[in-house]
Amino acid sequence: METSLNSVYDSVIIHFSGELWLKKLWTRKYYEKRLARNIKQTLKFYQISYSELVRRHGRFYLKTDSAVEAADKLARVFGISSVSPAVETSSKLDDVIKKSLFVAGIALEVGNSFAVRCKRVGDQEYSSSDIRNLLGQKVLDEFGEKLGLRVDLGNPDIVLGVEVRDNQAFVYSQTFEAVGGMPLGVQPRLVGLFSGGIDSAVGLWMVMKRGGPVVPVYFDNSPFTDETVTDRALKVAEVLFSWAIGFPRKVYVVQHGENLKQIMQTNRKYSCLLCKRMMYRVAERLAEQLHAEGIVTGEAIGEQASQTLTNLRVLSAAVKEYPVHRPLLGFDKQETEAIGRKIGTYELSSTKAASCGAVPYQPSTKAKLEEILKAEEKLDIQAMVERSLESIKIVEL
Amino acid sequence: METSLNSVYDSVIIHFSGELWLKKLWTRKYYEKRLARNIKQTLKFYQISYSELVRRHGRFYLKTDSAVEAADKLARVFGISSVSPAVETSSKLDDVIKKSLFVAGIALEVGNSFAVRCKRVGDQEYSSSDIRNLLGQKVLDEFGEKLGLRVDLGNPDIVLGVEVRDNQAFVYSQTFEAVGGMPLGVQPRLVGLFSGGIDSAVGLWMVMKRGGPVVPVYFDNSPFTDETVTDRALKVAEVLFSWAIGFPRKVYVVQHGENLKQIMQTNRKYSCLLCKRMMYRVAERLAEQLHAEGIVTGEAIGEQASQTLTNLRVLSAAVKEYPVHRPLLGFDKQETEAIGRKIGTYELSSTKAASCGAVPYQPSTKAKLEEILKAEEKLDIQAMVERSLESIKIVEL
Repeated sequence: METSLNSVYDSVIIHFSGELWLKKLWTRKYYEKRLARNIKQTLKFYQISYSELVRRHGRFYLKTDSAVEAADKLARVFGISSVSPAVETSSKLDDVIKKSLFVAGIALEVGNSFAVRCKRVGDQEYSSSDIRNLLGQKVLDEFGEKLGLRVDLGNPDIVLGVEVRDNQAFVYSQTFEAVGGMPLGVQPRLVGLFSGGIDSAVGLWMVMKRGGPVVPVYFDNSPFTDETVTDRALKVAEVLFSWAIGFPRKVYVVQHGENLKQIMQTNRKYSCLLCKRMMYRVAERLAEQLHAEGIVTGEAIGEQASQTLTNLRVLSAAVKEYPVHRPLLGFDKQETEAIGRKIGTYELSSTKAASCGAVPYQPSTKAKLEEILKAEEKLDIQAMVERSLESIKIVEL
Repeated sequence: METSLNSVYDSVIIHFSGELWLKKLWTRKYYEKRLARNIKQTLKFYQISYSELVRRHGRFYLKTDSAVEAADKLARVFGISSVSPAVETSSKLDDVIKKSLFVAGIALEVGNSFAVRCKRVGDQEYSSSDIRNLLGQKVLDEFGEKLGLRVDLGNPDIVLGVEVRDNQAFVYSQTFEAVGGMPLGVQPRLVGLFSGGIDSAVGLWMVMKRGGPVVPVYFDNSPFTDETVTDRALKVAEVLFSWAIGFPRKVYVVQHGENLKQIMQTNRKYSCLLCKRMMYRVAERLAEQLHAEGIVTGEAIGEQASQTLTNLRVLSAAVKEYPVHRPLLGFDKQETEAIGRKIGTYELSSTKAASCGAVPYQPSTKAKLEEILKAEEKLDIQAMVERSLESIKIVEL
């Protein structure tokens, strides 16, 4: 983005995710209210000052002198599909044309193709197509020869956009795709199993994208791992929280090493399943305490031995009162990685950290629930869950 | 694809999904065996004759005179990442160069940029870079001036590829991306709630992609819908089955209208939840009968009133012995639609069909399980499940 445009813009046009329009009116109102709150929290967090945030005709219009910076940050707010830094003017034809030519003069570069788009609401003496034709011609007259411009309505380099709203108009030349999804907080919270690895970060993010805040629970496996894993997890959690501004930034850290020691005394090929079932149980108790509506994990079918469909059933059976949600279930590894790169967790999640020393050489891929239950008979499950809950330290980031 | 190349190719190079390489040896062997079976079934289904399918050095090589058609069909087999129609020759340097120039002569067009790639396994008197340099120069000498070719190692129009494997070599000029995923059948089967709509088709496909065969169960809501919905569902199922060649092509059709009639006698705002809980129960019984390991649905968070996280918990609570898998949980509608287009279900799923007359005007988005259980007290759930199971007709497509 150019400094020159940066200093010209005084507004941001904020488009809602298309899906919001499919909701019934009362649901949409509620979602929009939540979105407005999240937008305000984000601007506050990044100390971006603004004079006004108004909802008009199916958009938010933000008035700010830091329009480009605001657009950049708001593109990461769930429920927004795109953002356009813009210049406001009156909806008088002369003003619209004059301001548009001003923006065009800054935005257009030598050899560019361009098109004019216009959307209009209200009683003006002109139509949208009047604006398109008149402004298009004026741009050609003013800059056409000098810059060697071409008109391209299909796939232009620069779209000069005009939104007329009653007595106001907004002119823009850049539209940035935003993250989409649903406003965070329109769904109840979930407890998320969070290792800081590639999958769990993306899995939890997917649920957040759909509006559900997530409380990350990290299981510290030391002495079977070391502090490198915990450090990594907390760094990745910070990135996750950057997608949830205005929501709590707490990671629940459970001491899980003692559980693992006991689990390793039973049938070794089931270690990972018994470990995971213990995590599920602790997460279930936390869900109850935190009034969450379920558990979310980064598990994908067949991604690890513990994640065959047979084993996922054995895992799910450890939890009775809450559903276990697995948004990555059908993803290939490279699809998960692509999202991880997009959201900024991949690189951190991929940094070297100690692998778990409790993983057996040949873990079971087709465990039978009866055998798992038999292995668990040797453990005092209830006591292990209680001790795990007592061990929890809340790390605020 | 050009006819001229079509008649030249005698082989297809088949690349496995990258994820297969992350598996331990015994798992990979099992997956490859399953993949070979699925490839053979696909060729048989489309009546594509072939003389040989061999696994060598981490690829499958298929010998067939219908290489382009085979490549096209195999690009839809889960577990394959890409396919290249190719010409086989001996690994003698002269033969490789001669055959490569022949392929280049057909593949290259006026103004193309090109690059030569080579991979080599075995004891030859030349290196991979010998092939690249020698062949690159020969192509320029032979066609460079005539066609106005340019060398572009980064992003060429045409890649002339050579794979040398001991005493064989394969030359190709086209590589088609395939579907990826894991070979169908390496995971146990699931029972899938299937309406024929956009979401359920994509949801079931996602699990198939990761290797789990799915038995689609369709609930016929007539008289609250009509036969247009059933017709549509069966057509969409046919498309789904085209991704599962060699596996059963059966849709389980449950008569659900009588259940709906009774459900509508209870609290209307819970109709959709009670309806869905009944579907889950029937699916659970079918999972038991069919030795499946769970249930899969097309539900996404917040996509409908019944799919808030609060309501998904209420739904999940109807099933105790099997997990409910929801691979679309974190998807925006447009992401689901994009996959639907790619796999060929979207257009059919979007055709007009009667909507369900049992849906209330304002369905509950935050149901409490106690209230749901209270509403269900008026129903003879057990009898409804039994009657539903007895009503099942298996439609073989």
